[in-house]
Amino acid sequence: MELKSQMRRMGVDARAAARELRGVSSDAKNAALLRIVAELNTRRDAIVAANQKDLSAAKESGMASAMLDRLTLTDAVIDGMAAGVAEVAAQEDPVGAVTEMKQRPNGLMVGRMRIPLGVIGFIYESRPNVTVDAAALCLKSGNAVILKGGSEAFHSNLVLGEVLRSALAATGLPEKAIQVVPTTDRQAVRELIGLTELVDLAIPRGGEGLIRFVAENARVPVLKHYKGVCHVFVDRSADLDRAEEICFNAKVQRPGVCNAMETLLVHQDTADRFLPAMITRFQQAGVELRGCPATCRIAPELTPAQASDWPAEFLDLVLAVRVVPDFPSALDHIDTHGSKHTEAIVTSDYSRARRFHAEVDASVVLVNASTRFNDGGQLGLGAEIGINTDKLHAFGPMGATELTTTKFIVFGEGQVRE
Amino acid sequence: MELKSQMRRMGVDARAAARELRGVSSDAKNAALLRIVAELNTRRDAIVAANQKDLSAAKESGMASAMLDRLTLTDAVIDGMAAGVAEVAAQEDPVGAVTEMKQRPNGLMVGRMRIPLGVIGFIYESRPNVTVDAAALCLKSGNAVILKGGSEAFHSNLVLGEVLRSALAATGLPEKAIQVVPTTDRQAVRELIGLTELVDLAIPRGGEGLIRFVAENARVPVLKHYKGVCHVFVDRSADLDRAEEICFNAKVQRPGVCNAMETLLVHQDTADRFLPAMITRFQQAGVELRGCPATCRIAPELTPAQASDWPAEFLDLVLAVRVVPDFPSALDHIDTHGSKHTEAIVTSDYSRARRFHAEVDASVVLVNASTRFNDGGQLGLGAEIGINTDKLHAFGPMGATELTTTKFIVFGEGQVRE
Repeated sequence: MELKSQMRRMGVDARAAARELRGVSSDAKNAALLRIVAELNTRRDAIVAANQKDLSAAKESGMASAMLDRLTLTDAVIDGMAAGVAEVAAQEDPVGAVTEMKQRPNGLMVGRMRIPLGVIGFIYESRPNVTVDAAALCLKSGNAVILKGGSEAFHSNLVLGEVLRSALAATGLPEKAIQVVPTTDRQAVRELIGLTELVDLAIPRGGEGLIRFVAENARVPVLKHYKGVCHVFVDRSADLDRAEEICFNAKVQRPGVCNAMETLLVHQDTADRFLPAMITRFQQAGVELRGCPATCRIAPELTPAQASDWPAEFLDLVLAVRVVPDFPSALDHIDTHGSKHTEAIVTSDYSRARRFHAEVDASVVLVNASTRFNDGGQLGLGAEIGINTDKLHAFGPMGATELTTTKFIVFGEGQVRE
Repeated sequence: MELKSQMRRMGVDARAAARELRGVSSDAKNAALLRIVAELNTRRDAIVAANQKDLSAAKESGMASAMLDRLTLTDAVIDGMAAGVAEVAAQEDPVGAVTEMKQRPNGLMVGRMRIPLGVIGFIYESRPNVTVDAAALCLKSGNAVILKGGSEAFHSNLVLGEVLRSALAATGLPEKAIQVVPTTDRQAVRELIGLTELVDLAIPRGGEGLIRFVAENARVPVLKHYKGVCHVFVDRSADLDRAEEICFNAKVQRPGVCNAMETLLVHQDTADRFLPAMITRFQQAGVELRGCPATCRIAPELTPAQASDWPAEFLDLVLAVRVVPDFPSALDHIDTHGSKHTEAIVTSDYSRARRFHAEVDASVVLVNASTRFNDGGQLGLGAEIGINTDKLHAFGPMGATELTTTKFIVFGEGQVRE
């Protein structure tokens, strides 16, 4: 079948499945999720075999070992997927909740009922376990999903799609509620994000190139973040031991992810006391530091930071360091160079903590905690399908609830408009 | 100044004003709103004089009288604008509310703080009072707004912009928080909706042509509805007197608006009892009826409905009428031809009322009430800037709260990620 009509067919099938899902109970959705857990276990050999095909191809093409690691479905990774789905099954169902019910002066009762968005197009790269995570969140929230993974995980994603499909079939849910795009053709992405009447939302997750491609070519709404240029500001009044632990964790614990710190801002009254030990600790951990002039006066061996370092997302053991003269300068720096992703302050000052929370424009704003906590699981959403740094719909990590919306329901007894 | 750089300048100014608004209290915003009320009163003559210029030009160009009415700023319309702003001032401020505060197992306190979206681009046609309504809602919700009205209301909008600007200045708020685009050049719209780093949301309101232009050319997120193809389904068990009042109100009370009924669906067990009197009443009110074959058997004088009538938004005293064999057929018809705007059922059946609420995919779903209640004011939002029929962000009428989002705020005591 021609790709265009194939993708449209998937969209039409997803739309029909989404309509069917509107009438499905929480119990039925949870039964399907638990069946996915069971099928992941019983089909373990088939999953590993398919994954081996991807791994062989990846090794032949010379994929770097860190990327190979991310692509590999070990028993532990499969256990992790299954545990994640079980956790989603155990979460509260966001769909159907009615809130803000109020009586109007004319006697109308008006409330808001939480409902699925409809059809999600999820476009992602590399780790095949994301296929199962995303499918579970979409099913939990009553959405149909079309999954387009990276070509490097093609065979893994196909077999996982088969696991998901058969779990739906076995529990009487519409099989087309979860569909894996059966091609590696990138043109399929373009078709998927052009299905305006069929797809309600596209979520791209992966490298900045993929995300820009989706954002710039989509004709359906897109939730995404391009990058995380996250700061920690060590204020004048900061507890310096605490500041050191937070900064070290934010940079070093997992430097390749979007919520890692990329620039450290230090109040000038603190710089002389704080920076020497902090710099030494970073250097011992192999972090390459790029300092502003004031930082380099404290540690002359550092590479001077370039203008291009301030808005940079290094995703690596690299850190820009800047000394700022005061609190407003820190806010200005974040406003100018931040990516609205994650921002943290370390302070003992009550009103600065409050102002930082109120005025910093980012999806997660932390006082005295590591930026690494911007994560759906860590913040209590249960799991996440992605992080959105546009402000529309959901700002920050998106869990099952963020894959829903509300409609107004009105209970009348014959009211008409005057 | 060249239009492109002029629009960019407005965007940059709006962005700076939006940042300033983040730190402004509810009291300060309300003081500015009440100052707008005062200025509307004291500058009444200047407003009417500017409006006369628009009216003269409109008459010369041969504008229809209904359109001229909508363009005219009478004393009563100015009073209405002022009252609307006063009402917005009296509303609760959505900004700053912190909800869902929870303690995580590691002691982190995590909550969601409601914040403004940032900069709104509002693009609209015809009625100049919308300028003031929209500006008031944006200011209340802490957003900066760039207003681009229709060329027919150009002078009226400019003088209203001056009123708004001086009220901001007099109360110490940033003047660029409300800007009126000082040109009739439609290219300004294209520039405005292309300001990706500066405008957070575009809202078009007006005819379908304007809305399609904005939706198809925007590079910033857009909330909108193209049309309202609203249904009333009169069920088998409906109280027929009540059904008649609701249907008459939904069609006739104000036929030119998006929440008027466009198609009447009638259960076949009710058709013989309900339709004859209903049809007579519509005919007496000058409504042109287009019937399905079963409807035409009951009233042979009716025009037969064409396939194109079912998805049509007549915006006039025209109504399509269809008899359906059962409840699922009514749901199917709405799913196929509806526009996700407003759908109503008249029924006495408890489980059908529940199913209609749960399964009908529309921004407002009513039981035993007129479709005309899909309106921010009527549903208790206070006022509305528009109605959104995409599901992202806010589904249905949008008031001040729908012009905000939430960010996560985290209170830590030194927590780091394991």
